[in-house]
Amino acid sequence: MGDLFFAGNSSMAVNLHIPSLSEIHAVPGIEIGIAEAGIRKAGRKDLTVFLLAPGTSVAGVFTQNRFRAAPVQVCESHLIAEPQIRALVINTGNANAGTGDSGLQASQDTCKALASLLNLNSQQILPFSTGVILEPLPVDRLVAGLPKAIANLGPNNWFDAAHGIMTTDTQPKIVSRRVVLGDKTVTITGISKGAGMIRPNMATMLGYLGTDAGIAPALLKEMAGAIANRSFNRITVDGDTSTNDSFMIMATGQSGLHIDSSNSPHFAALFDALAEAATELAQKIVRDAEGATKFMTIQVEQAKDTNEALKVAYAVAQSPLVKTAFYASDPNLGRILAAIGYAGIIDLDVSAVNLWLGDVLVASNGQRHPGYQEADGQRVMQQPEITVRIGLGRGTIAETVYTCDFSHEYVSINADYRS
Amino acid sequence: MGDLFFAGNSSMAVNLHIPSLSEIHAVPGIEIGIAEAGIRKAGRKDLTVFLLAPGTSVAGVFTQNRFRAAPVQVCESHLIAEPQIRALVINTGNANAGTGDSGLQASQDTCKALASLLNLNSQQILPFSTGVILEPLPVDRLVAGLPKAIANLGPNNWFDAAHGIMTTDTQPKIVSRRVVLGDKTVTITGISKGAGMIRPNMATMLGYLGTDAGIAPALLKEMAGAIANRSFNRITVDGDTSTNDSFMIMATGQSGLHIDSSNSPHFAALFDALAEAATELAQKIVRDAEGATKFMTIQVEQAKDTNEALKVAYAVAQSPLVKTAFYASDPNLGRILAAIGYAGIIDLDVSAVNLWLGDVLVASNGQRHPGYQEADGQRVMQQPEITVRIGLGRGTIAETVYTCDFSHEYVSINADYRS
Repeated sequence: MGDLFFAGNSSMAVNLHIPSLSEIHAVPGIEIGIAEAGIRKAGRKDLTVFLLAPGTSVAGVFTQNRFRAAPVQVCESHLIAEPQIRALVINTGNANAGTGDSGLQASQDTCKALASLLNLNSQQILPFSTGVILEPLPVDRLVAGLPKAIANLGPNNWFDAAHGIMTTDTQPKIVSRRVVLGDKTVTITGISKGAGMIRPNMATMLGYLGTDAGIAPALLKEMAGAIANRSFNRITVDGDTSTNDSFMIMATGQSGLHIDSSNSPHFAALFDALAEAATELAQKIVRDAEGATKFMTIQVEQAKDTNEALKVAYAVAQSPLVKTAFYASDPNLGRILAAIGYAGIIDLDVSAVNLWLGDVLVASNGQRHPGYQEADGQRVMQQPEITVRIGLGRGTIAETVYTCDFSHEYVSINADYRS
Repeated sequence: MGDLFFAGNSSMAVNLHIPSLSEIHAVPGIEIGIAEAGIRKAGRKDLTVFLLAPGTSVAGVFTQNRFRAAPVQVCESHLIAEPQIRALVINTGNANAGTGDSGLQASQDTCKALASLLNLNSQQILPFSTGVILEPLPVDRLVAGLPKAIANLGPNNWFDAAHGIMTTDTQPKIVSRRVVLGDKTVTITGISKGAGMIRPNMATMLGYLGTDAGIAPALLKEMAGAIANRSFNRITVDGDTSTNDSFMIMATGQSGLHIDSSNSPHFAALFDALAEAATELAQKIVRDAEGATKFMTIQVEQAKDTNEALKVAYAVAQSPLVKTAFYASDPNLGRILAAIGYAGIIDLDVSAVNLWLGDVLVASNGQRHPGYQEADGQRVMQQPEITVRIGLGRGTIAETVYTCDFSHEYVSINADYRS
């Protein structure tokens, strides 16, 4: 682990906290095993298995990309067909995307092999792949690695799993916390990977959140969608959505706390704790994004509805001109106003628009604020974490999106590498 | 002009043809004058006046950005109020955008001053500004420069005007051609500027096309929209839309050819000639785009309608991952498929999608084409002009969008410079 820690120190990741092993809590009911299967490169732990205790609820959210990878399609059908998911299997090095019927067969064969080893039926397995697109999954090597992963199963392997699912991430991404709800202590631990919506030829974002709270399956499904909309669906690096994006929540119930509906005591507190953990995992992807030197929070307020708030937030967050200005620490405000203007709100009254950079009001009523001094903008721009706040003056809805700046390093990584 | 020619040779522009002076035809009925007004920098010809003969039809298309610059708002109101536009005035160095009521006043004062010098009324003038956003237009210096521009008026100044409207463009952009329609010879000459949707803190794209064909005003207005949709509305560099984008057509009628309706003889040929000239001007903006090393044509075919064809074309053309792959000459096909997949066609059947890189079929039926060899993709990727052709297998509509690759130089220009 010394090497990995060193790699972390030398990277450009922005304020990405890596918890120590003592801060990472096992989740009763979840065991994890990691192995080297040689999917793409030798000497790399590229295969991860999650084994879930009977009674665990599992729900997930998957990519909206129409070129959904084969494992995403298999996950969706297994979640519909089988109420009792018992294991997850994740490989890196190959995304099994754009691979047609033979790709589907490879994912199904993976599930069958793991089911046979664990004495389950294959629909109780969810498969995930991440890595190169358009190349056949070497399913024989994957299957050959499964016994080693099973032999490695244990409750304290979350940190290794965070490494195991990395592709070109520079940092493992892991959160862990405990929350007291009534007379029960609930554990929440999760991992994610991704460093750009798509890494060089990579299909990217994965997130797994485990808890020993018990949550009714139908409720967990709703919660997964709502939590994704606060976390993984609110980050952008380059606007590209991968073919393999998946976010899963696993709730084992072994803490003794059981939540059946959104009216249950402790529902709101549990929801918030899960959403916070997911948001932290999602933010870690932005902090470790390709070439990132700044972490940017884009808050849009006073919108008429969520849709228009997000349109404005994403227009600003995805503008290459805004992102290069932040890279340069240049308070180039016209670029932010221009992005607000082309975000697609047809009837936007620009004379009601206000813009803050950190705590500095830079534009009011759609114009440069009379009291704004360039030195104040410059001061905010030097910081590694910057909040851009936009008031639209149209309503009461607010939305927040997280992104990073756009550096030479982003171009180098995406132009020069192909993993 | 020696300096400018040298600057051209040292830039990265991709196959951008600069016609010699003998290839640039005057347009009877249009005179142009250029002057140094010191708007932002000394020693720079930053003021251009077009004087149009009585009877000239003028129509235009303006930015959709909600933060429309003051001159755009004045242009729109003058075009509605006044059937006989007689002059255009264009300054570089300052966009007069995000400047509120005082910006509107500055544009109106510019028109009044020029009207007084030319013995016109101020609504017969159209003002255009390009340059820095959010700073007040130095209208006194602009007005002081007008007599020099008027003294310079002449029919053969198109080349100087192409320089005069440049901001951080590395190359002047000019087209000129003659077309024989029946017994008349019609001249079409035009200029454009822009090198990215927004240059560093710049508000950007301008295009002016002059012809001595006569075109009824209502028809010209329709034609301007249709021509923009084949040319300036089909280019993208970074997806950013500026606050000042404007495209104007001026038709003097002095060739003796007059077109009153789309049923007139020669309408179609004239439309095509104007659209070709506009497309060439638009493409020149992409060829000279910030950091461009490759010119890319994205053709989407077999769409159900224009909207979905454009969604796919722009998703591919604006993907930073696709653009960095082209910069690297890396046939990284998964990135193009992923962009097609997230373009927003909800019911896209990916198994009907085909993809060509130049003449090479790289993906068929949504998967890697069995006969595809990486060496073939590599061969196409080495070329400076590359066509990406996408068959959606859903209908009969086709659309084409032009873009460029995404290089280190783009980040350098947009991060390091502020003009």
